[in-house]
Parts: sequence; structure tokens; C-alpha cells
Amino acid sequence: MSTIEARLESLGLQLPAPVKLPPGVVLCFPWVRIHGDRAIVSGHGALNADGSIAPLLGKVGKDLTLEQGYNAARLAGLAILASLKAELGDLDRITAWLRAYGMVNTAEGFTNYPQVINGFTDLILELFGPDRGRHARSAVGMAGLPFGLAVEIEAEVAISG
Amino acid sequence: MSTIEARLESLGLQLPAPVKLPPGVVLCFPWVRIHGDRAIVSGHGALNADGSIAPLLGKVGKDLTLEQGYNAARLAGLAILASLKAELGDLDRITAWLRAYGMVNTAEGFTNYPQVINGFTDLILELFGPDRGRHARSAVGMAGLPFGLAVEIEAEVAISG
Amino acid sequence: MSTIEARLESLGLQLPAPVKLPPGVVLCFPWVRIHGDRAIVSGHGALNADGSIAPLLGKVGKDLTLEQGYNAARLAGLAILASLKAELGDLDRITAWLRAYGMVNTAEGFTNYPQVINGFTDLILELFGPDRGRHARSAVGMAGLPFGLAVEIEAEVAISG
Repeated sequence: MSTIEARLESLGLQLPAPVKLPPGVVLCFPWVRIHGDRAIVSGHGALNADGSIAPLLGKVGKDLTLEQGYNAARLAGLAILASLKAELGDLDRITAWLRAYGMVNTAEGFTNYPQVINGFTDLILELFGPDRGRHARSAVGMAGLPFGLAVEIEAEVAISG
Repeated sequence: MSTIEARLESLGLQLPAPVKLPPGVVLCFPWVRIHGDRAIVSGHGALNADGSIAPLLGKVGKDLTLEQGYNAARLAGLAILASLKAELGDLDRITAWLRAYGMVNTAEGFTNYPQVINGFTDLILELFGPDRGRHARSAVGMAGLPFGLAVEIEAEVAISG
Repeated sequence: MSTIEARLESLGLQLPAPVKLPPGVVLCFPWVRIHGDRAIVSGHGALNADGSIAPLLGKVGKDLTLEQGYNAARLAGLAILASLKAELGDLDRITAWLRAYGMVNTAEGFTNYPQVINGFTDLILELFGPDRGRHARSAVGMAGLPFGLAVEIEAEVAISG
């Protein structure tokens, strides 16, 4: 078993199934685009275990609490890992996390986006450790996200061949 | 004639003239930044054939319909191609589309950003095919865009020397 | 003394001290992530000389004027340079600015994000000149930024070994 998957298991975490969109929605882009040693990751939201969109929808600070937003960011991280595993075969091929752009569907007046996106960053650091896991990051407030997602995260990682 | 330009012609599409900004507006940055085999593309909106800003302004879901938003994204794609052609000389030098970040000027309550940005992605796939054209993507709702643009897209492509 | 720091001095500019966050706020990510010849820069806002968050908070076009927004973008640029110097040792190791993503905390109806983010771009061009300093750019309106920052900028530069 790969090191990262062993850590996921020891933390009691499971990757969701591949993204399953609502009926009628067709996506014309990949969840991960590989080029050389770069894997560029499309924006992901929180998923249920079966790959359907998790019911963490609406504006953080109004429809959802900070804690629910943190959880949405953590689940978005698991969704990203599921997409990376599907594309790379083995998450141990990730040699470095480079960038994460954390987007929070924000209520007027809420500004604690960093603490929301920590749900993602904490997960990555737990799994990959401080050297491989550390990534440049922004955490910002959006006027809206697809399907009303509370959190969406895009990222880039470096991979081995 | 280059392959991509032949495809543009066979689809009846024309690239707009270089961006022509409103009087008094001076831009201090390039539309495309080349570094090694990477071409990083600044945010583009929809243009008229003469390079002036197209009258697809305002908030999608209120001032503009979904269909108008889709069209704005397609025109933004043509504007990006015009900038890449000006910088690269030949669009056949694009070996892979890597990333697109699709920003939609959103009305409160509108969330169908993916279908809007499909206007861009469909164009790129028609021209470059599924292997070269596929790109990681996010499609999100913005509180505002320059000049009131309905859609703005930034991107990155890989190029040959 | 390095060339860029000599230019900073000749312009009468000083880099702020490293970022000092409000009490209780802990950041779990680096301000700059190096990978190969790339330095990816996390989102930065305007800082005071001592590294604390500058009082340029709120929405540009309502709480702050365009000129204050421009100044916030310039100060965000100085904060980015301070982080790059801390990571690289010498700013002369920056061989090219590649990308800047300029985010403006926007009031309803304000759209002049490019002129705000020019505060950043003008600074980089003054210091690095047109060849090394030019960067692909987007300048857009956000529904909110952390701590109520008026401007936040993330970036990528190329570096020498």
C-alpha cells in the first residue's frame, strides 16, 4: 500500500468515489491536467462518499458556520486527492504541493476565509508532512460558486514520472 | 496556413484585432507572458472584431442571459487566441492547454458558471481537439470585473520553441 | 548591495518587516513556495513597516478611494518583495515576473480594478524594468478578502539557482 494511502487509513479517512454530477450536467474538462512534472487541478468542492455533491451549500457566515466551511474545505481536499489518485494511480507520486487557491462562497461581512481554507491545508499537512505538503495559498471570498458550493479549491502539485 | 487557423476558417470564425482599450486607459502589462515552454495569458474579455470591448457587459443572470454569457466566454476565447497569435506568430506552437480560470460577473442567486465558461472550453476543444485542448478549469462567480465585463478568462498553455 | 535593493533605496522605499498577524491567528502555509526555478507567492495584502496589517481595509469605491486602493496594491507589492527576500536571500535572484493575480475588495458598482492593481505593477516595473518586470495579469473584484483587506495579490516569479 502506498504511504499516503496508509496514512489516510490510519486517520480513518476515505476518498470519495469519482465526481458524480447532477443529472444533465456534462463537464467538458478534466479534473486534473498533467504536463511534464506538473499536475494542475481543477476547482473541486466537497463530495459525499458516493461522489455526489455534499450538502454543504450556501454562503459561509450565513447559511453555514465557520466549522461547516472548514469541513467543506477538508472534504474538497479529499475530493482533490481522489481525482489525483484516479489520474496518477498512486498518491505517492506527488512530490510537492505547490499552490492552492481557496474560494469561499461568502456572506456579506464574513472575512475569516483563512480559517475556512485551513480545513484543506490541515488535511494536506497531516498526510504529506510539512516539507512535501506546504503550499503557497490564497483564501478569498467569492460572490458565488457553481451549484452553490460553500467552498471550491483549485491547486497545483509536482509529480514524479 | 497553420492547422489551427485553417480550422478557425472552416468554422467561419475570425480572430479580433488586437485589444483596443477605451480612450485614456493605459495598460502596463502584456496580454501574454512567455517563459520557457509556458505562455501565461492575462485575463481577457469579449472583443468586437475591431478589438474594442464587446457590449456584453453587466451581471449574468440579471443584465445578461446564460446564452449571452456563453457567447461572451466564446468571444473571450477568440480574444485570447488573437493575443497568443500576436505573441507566438503561429497558434500551432501551442502544444497543450493547461489551465483556464473562468470568471463570471454574477447576479445574486445565479450559479451556473460552468455552463457559461463552456463557451470558452467548447471553442478550444473544437479547435485543438480533446488531447491538446483539454485543460484544468474553474468557473466561478465574481463580485465585479473590469469595465463591467460579463466574463473574464485567464489561462496558461504549453508551447514549442 | 544587490541591484534591486539599491533601486529600492534610491526610490526611498523600504521593505516591511515579516508579516505579523493579529494575536491568535496562526498560518499553516508559507508566503513563498519554491519549486525548481519557480517561486509561487501566496496572497499578500498591504503591511505597515513593522509587518502588521496596514489600515487600508474595506471596500474600494466605498470605504476607500481609488487612490487608497492604488496605494494598498503598491504596499502589497512591497510585502511580496519582503517575503521573496526572506525566502531567496537576494531579490536579484528574480529573473522574471510571470503572473500576478490582483484581487480588489469591491463596492457594488466600482469596476476600475486595473487602475488599483497598477499600484503593484508600476512598482514592479520601476524596480525590475520592462523586460524582467512584465507579467501576465488579471485585476478583478472580490466579494471579500481576509481581515477586510482592500487588496490582495498573489504572484509567480522565475528565479535563478
